Amino acid sequence: MTDTSATDYRFPHPHILGIEGFSAQDITHLLDLADKYVDQNRRFDKKTDEMHGMTVINLFFENSTRTRTSFELAAKRLGADTINMSVESSSIKKGETLIDTAMTLNAMHPDVLVVRHSESGATKLLSEKVNCAVINAGDGSHEHPTQALLDALTIRRRKGRLNNMTVAICGDVAHSRVARSNIHLLHTMGARVRLVAPPTLLPAAADRLGVEVFTDMREGLKDCDIVMMLRLQMERMQGSFVPSTREYFRFFGLDREKLAFAKADALVMHPGPMNRGVEIDSDLADDIDRSVIREQVEMGVAVRMACVDILTRAKREEQA
Amino acid sequence: MTDTSATDYRFPHPHILGIEGFSAQDITHLLDLADKYVDQNRRFDKKTDEMHGMTVINLFFENSTRTRTSFELAAKRLGADTINMSVESSSIKKGETLIDTAMTLNAMHPDVLVVRHSESGATKLLSEKVNCAVINAGDGSHEHPTQALLDALTIRRRKGRLNNMTVAICGDVAHSRVARSNIHLLHTMGARVRLVAPPTLLPAAADRLGVEVFTDMREGLKDCDIVMMLRLQMERMQGSFVPSTREYFRFFGLDREKLAFAKADALVMHPGPMNRGVEIDSDLADDIDRSVIREQVEMGVAVRMACVDILTRAKREEQA
Amino acid sequence: MTDTSATDYRFPHPHILGIEGFSAQDITHLLDLADKYVDQNRRFDKKTDEMHGMTVINLFFENSTRTRTSFELAAKRLGADTINMSVESSSIKKGETLIDTAMTLNAMHPDVLVVRHSESGATKLLSEKVNCAVINAGDGSHEHPTQALLDALTIRRRKGRLNNMTVAICGDVAHSRVARSNIHLLHTMGARVRLVAPPTLLPAAADRLGVEVFTDMREGLKDCDIVMMLRLQMERMQGSFVPSTREYFRFFGLDREKLAFAKADALVMHPGPMNRGVEIDSDLADDIDRSVIREQVEMGVAVRMACVDILTRAKREEQA
Repeated sequence: MTDTSATDYRFPHPHILGIEGFSAQDITHLLDLADKYVDQNRRFDKKTDEMHGMTVINLFFENSTRTRTSFELAAKRLGADTINMSVESSSIKKGETLIDTAMTLNAMHPDVLVVRHSESGATKLLSEKVNCAVINAGDGSHEHPTQALLDALTIRRRKGRLNNMTVAICGDVAHSRVARSNIHLLHTMGARVRLVAPPTLLPAAADRLGVEVFTDMREGLKDCDIVMMLRLQMERMQGSFVPSTREYFRFFGLDREKLAFAKADALVMHPGPMNRGVEIDSDLADDIDRSVIREQVEMGVAVRMACVDILTRAKREEQA
Repeated sequence: MTDTSATDYRFPHPHILGIEGFSAQDITHLLDLADKYVDQNRRFDKKTDEMHGMTVINLFFENSTRTRTSFELAAKRLGADTINMSVESSSIKKGETLIDTAMTLNAMHPDVLVVRHSESGATKLLSEKVNCAVINAGDGSHEHPTQALLDALTIRRRKGRLNNMTVAICGDVAHSRVARSNIHLLHTMGARVRLVAPPTLLPAAADRLGVEVFTDMREGLKDCDIVMMLRLQMERMQGSFVPSTREYFRFFGLDREKLAFAKADALVMHPGPMNRGVEIDSDLADDIDRSVIREQVEMGVAVRMACVDILTRAKREEQA
Repeated sequence: MTDTSATDYRFPHPHILGIEGFSAQDITHLLDLADKYVDQNRRFDKKTDEMHGMTVINLFFENSTRTRTSFELAAKRLGADTINMSVESSSIKKGETLIDTAMTLNAMHPDVLVVRHSESGATKLLSEKVNCAVINAGDGSHEHPTQALLDALTIRRRKGRLNNMTVAICGDVAHSRVARSNIHLLHTMGARVRLVAPPTLLPAAADRLGVEVFTDMREGLKDCDIVMMLRLQMERMQGSFVPSTREYFRFFGLDREKLAFAKADALVMHPGPMNRGVEIDSDLADDIDRSVIREQVEMGVAVRMACVDILTRAKREEQA
């Protein structure tokens, strides 16, 4: 199931904290492995026992439907035991610090800690304290590496490659860890990245990211292969600029008229959850000829299986 | 374990959304299957691996102790992986719609979605969008089919049959999905149904349900085989009629004096959770000679195992 | 794995509700069994299938990170199915009583109920109603037996014995179920117990507990083998005495200067979650030469495996 092909390549990272610092080979290796899990997940028996007796703990300091469930399913389908801990039921309320919570869990011998936190850098900090593998499931506006990997897997399966693709990342880039992880991944894999957003939702140093910047959707989408919409992160907009959703849709929401500027076979993506009628026309979101939004979710489970698998493989081989 | 006996009957429904539309054969088949699981659940090893590698997701938009736990145990004891998602930790807070949540989960390849929702018809709507089996765990005041099945199993095991039984369903019928599912099931199986309630808690079209209607408990219970109490759904009574619990108990609460009007061996049932001293005398509720309330809970796990089993069997046989 | 050695000793308790009433042999037997599970938990495959098909339900009426997770992992690593039920998602909100909730779960055939409740005696009451094994995971200010067992295991592994150890239990003794369970256990195993606390945080009848009482940390710690700090249970202090945390740390917080009065190799313990800078100096808490706080957490999983194992063994042997 998990041969690492003919090469003697070994995944060199003890954690998956971000795409920054991953090589093209690292990314390709994870995507190749995920491809196999896509097939496994389409069978009726979706489970192996590769990770029998290992423990994966989901430690979520922010709410999430799809990411927590996706990781939980990924771990279960690899045969691992899973534990969910959300901030609501945790000792954080009793004043325990992030690190104490992590160290406490660490003492229970988990093999993987999947961590989501509202502060950028929290997962890295945590990874330095524990002696198990850590996967960043989103930290503040920093990185969300498994989202970028699942986006890449979706593109690669549809288009056959990432190299030389032109990808427009559109909307609330400023607050988006999804955008940051995708920019790193797409650049590493040889794709061209455009950011398309109103000036207030562009990151401060957009000009230093090696991307093309557009503030007009029609110009930004011109001849793109991929239109990657982002969620408006209203909960992260503190005071500053909160757009009227009506106005926002008019200028930056994706509809068929704006999409017509992209290539005829351009794919529409969204990391979810969608604000229909705000970031994207509801009908277009459901058009399975153009939209691969559900496919992204499916790829998500497979990519997370690959990540959990790869980080625990050395330990399993060592003790086998 | 799961032979379908000598007949070539096959369960014809892809989902279990309600009892309405189920034939006597469908119901009998589910009860026969559940009977076997009652025995399995009384062993120390209560688990088989029939559903190894399959995934059951509990998607609850309303709180529930017993129903969620009952389904979770049912799925685990069939060997499936289970995921719980409650509205509190879901993306609904971020504005995602019911259907988007369901479609997202669907993309993760669950085999069964168990859904509870406060809106009547929500589970049916959802079942039309996903490509896995859906079980209605209660939708608004519409149906709660597994409750009716577990009630039927309890009666059949105690009385040997459902046919010709006289069943009084008492209390807050107007707001009760339990009552609606039971009326369908009992009629289909040849039982006689009486509704006993104050006029304000009777459903609008009670006269068209094919039942006898009583507004006096003593008359309604006369010569009954089964007294099925309902929970006062105060949380569903918006403004209209909220009874004083003291007055309610006096006229419509079940105590030994009122029960004396029923047959000497009449059984007392309640779907739980009970409001002791409101719908039912506390002492009577605990009288194991008359009350089968705990047995109903036990039957619940077995019935849910039968439902999850039957809906996934075709898929397992096909791929085996 | 689980031979009970050459003796014909059998654990005589159907439940683990408190340390009070346990013999030295009972405690030693549990600690010996836990020792084996410490080793199991350090492997990559931490799981056996001794409890395949058995069900452990965690019924928590109070929040807890470590205790719930610890029990959940313990049960999973023994191969049991686990269900979590917290008061937030339970029918308690609908007015169901503690006993009805327990009886409902009992009817689903769990093999072990792990119960935490804010009322002293709640778990005992509950154990009299159900026909499965009950483990007290903390009831009010009464007992927290698995905490005392994990503390004992930690001491025994570090010091080789419990007999003749001098243990200072320091801080909020009045509100502490941890202290009560530890006093019972340490006395039974032949250790000497000192309580060190401000007068307002000493239990009412401290003089009848067979302990030495100190209101000065330096005197209390003099020549101790073990310094066991307690958490300030601010949430249990109703109106009465709520200390300023600054003042508290000055007089009763553990720092290196006060610790110097204990033996040179005295161990520092804390049941967690810690209030750093209140009960204990943050730096000292992390000093792995003195502090065994993380080890306590590790021992916790092993001790809970021993408890769940021992209470279900008779049932397994009987049916095997």
